[in-house]
Amino acid sequence: MHFDHAGIATDDAAGLADLYTDLFDTHVAHEETFDGMEVVFLSLGNGYLELLEPTASDGAIASYLDSNGAGIHHVAVATDDIGAALANAREMGIDLIDEEPRDGAWGHDVAFLHPKDTGGILVEFVEH
Amino acid sequence: MHFDHAGIATDDAAGLADLYTDLFDTHVAHEETFDGMEVVFLSLGNGYLELLEPTASDGAIASYLDSNGAGIHHVAVATDDIGAALANAREMGIDLIDEEPRDGAWGHDVAFLHPKDTGGILVEFVEH
Repeated sequence: MHFDHAGIATDDAAGLADLYTDLFDTHVAHEETFDGMEVVFLSLGNGYLELLEPTASDGAIASYLDSNGAGIHHVAVATDDIGAALANAREMGIDLIDEEPRDGAWGHDVAFLHPKDTGGILVEFVEH
Repeated sequence: MHFDHAGIATDDAAGLADLYTDLFDTHVAHEETFDGMEVVFLSLGNGYLELLEPTASDGAIASYLDSNGAGIHHVAVATDDIGAALANAREMGIDLIDEEPRDGAWGHDVAFLHPKDTGGILVEFVEH
């Protein structure tokens, strides 16, 4: 497994993408509207920053912004076999938010684990 | 520049390292006591998770845990020239927590930027 991206909740994905492009000397690798969010992936060479801006007032990111303000929402770890990664997590007794992989941004398969069982950190598995 | 690590505040670095070792099929790359913290770097192949457990009741991580509980504390981006990265950030009008690079964990040079100017996210530059 390896680092895939850090997911960042923001109310201004375009503005933050401009800022990070200059700050980290990088570029936008992918952007799309997905699941009620503007999603921008900024390349960091060996991984990405995923900027998440809600376009509706409901949804997980909108709730996160309401409660916490902008910040680092999750860490995504890439795996070649998301089914096996989830099975292992289940066997470890970790509560799965997604019992099965689902369609995520950029056409990837994703699944989230419950932070109560992963040290308070929202973890995403992603398979490209 | 490229992704270096996500810094995670925890009250149990050893326990979380054990859990992540199994969950991410990885290993501890480095650990040390540094600046009033137990610091554990877990390899993710192309970067690290840095687990930060305060060993004293004061300090930035202890304050973070008091206010937020365990969670993702910062994102660190590696650069070959931390002085140039800081100069660029300063020119962009970003408030620097560290005006000059300082000694960080694992013997690296590090500098933090103020989250108020970086979209609410605590950003660290690191030069190995």
